[in-house]
Order: sequence, then C-alpha cells, then structure tokens
Amino acid sequence: MAQKIISISTRGQGLYEFTAEAASFVRANGAAEGLLTVFVRHTSCSLLIQENADPDVRTDLDVFFRRLVPPSSDPSMHWIVHTTEGADDMPAHIKAALTQVSIGIPIIGGRLALGTWQGIYLFEHRDRPHRREIVLHLSA
Amino acid sequence: MAQKIISISTRGQGLYEFTAEAASFVRANGAAEGLLTVFVRHTSCSLLIQENADPDVRTDLDVFFRRLVPPSSDPSMHWIVHTTEGADDMPAHIKAALTQVSIGIPIIGGRLALGTWQGIYLFEHRDRPHRREIVLHLSA
Amino acid sequence: MAQKIISISTRGQGLYEFTAEAASFVRANGAAEGLLTVFVRHTSCSLLIQENADPDVRTDLDVFFRRLVPPSSDPSMHWIVHTTEGADDMPAHIKAALTQVSIGIPIIGGRLALGTWQGIYLFEHRDRPHRREIVLHLSA
Repeated sequence: MAQKIISISTRGQGLYEFTAEAASFVRANGAAEGLLTVFVRHTSCSLLIQENADPDVRTDLDVFFRRLVPPSSDPSMHWIVHTTEGADDMPAHIKAALTQVSIGIPIIGGRLALGTWQGIYLFEHRDRPHRREIVLHLSA
Repeated sequence: MAQKIISISTRGQGLYEFTAEAASFVRANGAAEGLLTVFVRHTSCSLLIQENADPDVRTDLDVFFRRLVPPSSDPSMHWIVHTTEGADDMPAHIKAALTQVSIGIPIIGGRLALGTWQGIYLFEHRDRPHRREIVLHLSA
Repeated sequence: MAQKIISISTRGQGLYEFTAEAASFVRANGAAEGLLTVFVRHTSCSLLIQENADPDVRTDLDVFFRRLVPPSSDPSMHWIVHTTEGADDMPAHIKAALTQVSIGIPIIGGRLALGTWQGIYLFEHRDRPHRREIVLHLSA
C-alpha cells in the first residue's frame, strides 16, 4: 500500500490532465497488480476519465456543462440561493455532483489498465485560479 | 479488512449526512492507512460528497436535480413509461444514474482524507420515508 | 487479489447487463469478504448499477440521456466542435462523463453485496456495434 497527495494549479474552468503523475506514482511503487484510487479533496472541482486524443472533446465537454449549469447570474438560474461566493460557485458544486469525486483504476502488468484513449483529468469548475489536492491511493 | 452495514431513515428527497458514522467506523478499526469504500444498496437513492458548511448548497443541489428531472406527472416528462411505482420513481432512478453508487475515500493518519468542507451524504430521491442500507468496506 | 478482463459486444445504445459474469468471477475466486472494482476501458460507454426488475426502467434511462444529450446533428447541439467521428460520438463522451467509469462493490459472505433490485450494466452510448472491455479487480 502506498499513498501520495499531489496538487494541481488550475487557471479557470476546464480539464487538467494528470495521467503522467498517476502513472509515475504507480511505477515508483513497482506493484505488478493492484488498484489505484484517485480522490479529489474539494467540492467545486471533480474527476473525469476522458478521451486524450482530440482536444475538441475537452472543449465540448466543458461547454456542455456550462450550458447545462450556467452561472447563477443567468436568469434561468434565478432559484439559486447560495450566491455569496460568486456566480460560478453553486454551479461548480452542481457540476461536481454530476461527475465523480473518486475513481478506481486497476493496475495490470505494472501499468494502469487504461484504454488507449483514456486520460485522467481534474475537472475545474471555478473561474479563478485554485490549487487542488488529489489523493493517490495504491493497494497492491 | 472490515465491513459494516449502516442504515439511514429518510423522510423525503434531500441530502442526509453520514460522515460521523463513516469516521467512527474507521476509528473503531484503528487502521492508520487504508481505503474506505462506501456503497449504497438501492437504485432510487445515491451517494454524494458535498459541501458541509452552508446548508443552502444542499438545498440548491436538491432543487437543481428536481428541475433537471421533474416528476413523471410533469408534461415535459410525458415520454416516461415506468410510472407504476409513482411519479417520483423513474426520476429517482435517473437522478441515481447521474450521481454515484459507490465512493472510495483514502484514510491517512487514521482519518478519512476528506477536504475541509467535504461531507458524505446519502441523496434520497423518493418522496416517502425509506430505510436505506449503506455498506462500509475498509481495506487496510 | 484477482483480475479478469471481460468483453461485451454491444449493438447500439442502451444498457447491457453483466451481473452474472461479475458474480461468477467472485465465486470462482472464493473470497468470503472483499471488494470488486469494475472499470470500463472506454470513453464513449460507461457503467451503471440500476434496477434489474422492470425493463421499462432501462428504456426510460436511455431515453432521458438521449433527450438531455441529443446527437450533434440536432440544432440544439450546434455548438459541438468534435463531429468527425459521427453525430453520436461527442454525445457519447458527454453521457460517459455524466455516469461512471468505475464502481466498487463490497463482497459479503462470498457474494456481491448488491441490493435486491440492483444489476450491473454497461451503458453503451454509440450507435454502431462495439466490443467493449471491462476490467474486474477483486481485492480480498
């Protein structure tokens, strides 16, 4: 068993890949078979495994979630009560609820058993820069 | 390794926190490092890690999901076929699909590695009272 | 610890149950207590635990997601950039983001601790037939 906390600096909404950091943590621990659990310690950003080939996929994902959950300043979101931390805050909590806070990824033959096109992303839902903490937990 | 089934009595739609029960299970087993997996044994409620500070966040989350997935009696949901268990039943399955059935939370230094504002919630999607079972699984 | 990769042939959008395959993998490994992690190696299909009783529930789930995320040929989806792989491709990535890529299910008394009505499904989001790989990871 091994654990590590990594941090990612975000500069506004969007997807930030950390597949390389996760893979290097797995390699450093030399486990042939096991399970990597990734956990994000925040409620206004989340985790996603998505296509790492065409960057347009990430753009479209980001736009979809912005359209589904617009800022609380948008007339369609007039019912939002929690507005004290800014128009992007409550939508950030909602987008986090719609995606994932933890993901388990098996390790086979010493490597993450990701599919060819899968990358691991932090999905930032706030506008301003943030420093986000992710826990990597490896059980062998 | 340790396991426990806890049950939560719900009184209608909304978020029910059980962070304290999960934390006390972890403490009782005395593991310094490990992983707690939380799993809900139902398909019309789900799990969520969300902000435990301002209760308005939970209200807004609940309202968002009610607006995104209204009862099947709502004209916009005319296409729903599964209505025999009530107007809140099929929307409950949909809301469960949009959130999570299991969450993995690392344990560091004998404590759940939750962020400062993170609480663990059962998200009830049915109107009437229910008794919900959650499995806590600790791997050290 | 044990691992197995299973594959599922899909014939268009919808839910494909593989509870029996997962249960038989658990039985074959004879673990009394443990955790099964299910992970899908793709970004245009996903995983779901849902009601396995009334098949209308699966139909309604499928319809909900098609209405929430229509094909990119639909006028409401004019903002989609990633269209080269077909009108069902980007919506498939979005639906995968809205559901789950991995699920952890505790094992109690040698059996998956699923609720009475819970089945494990691959949720296919593409129109054409695909062969999908799922990793089963058992930690005892």
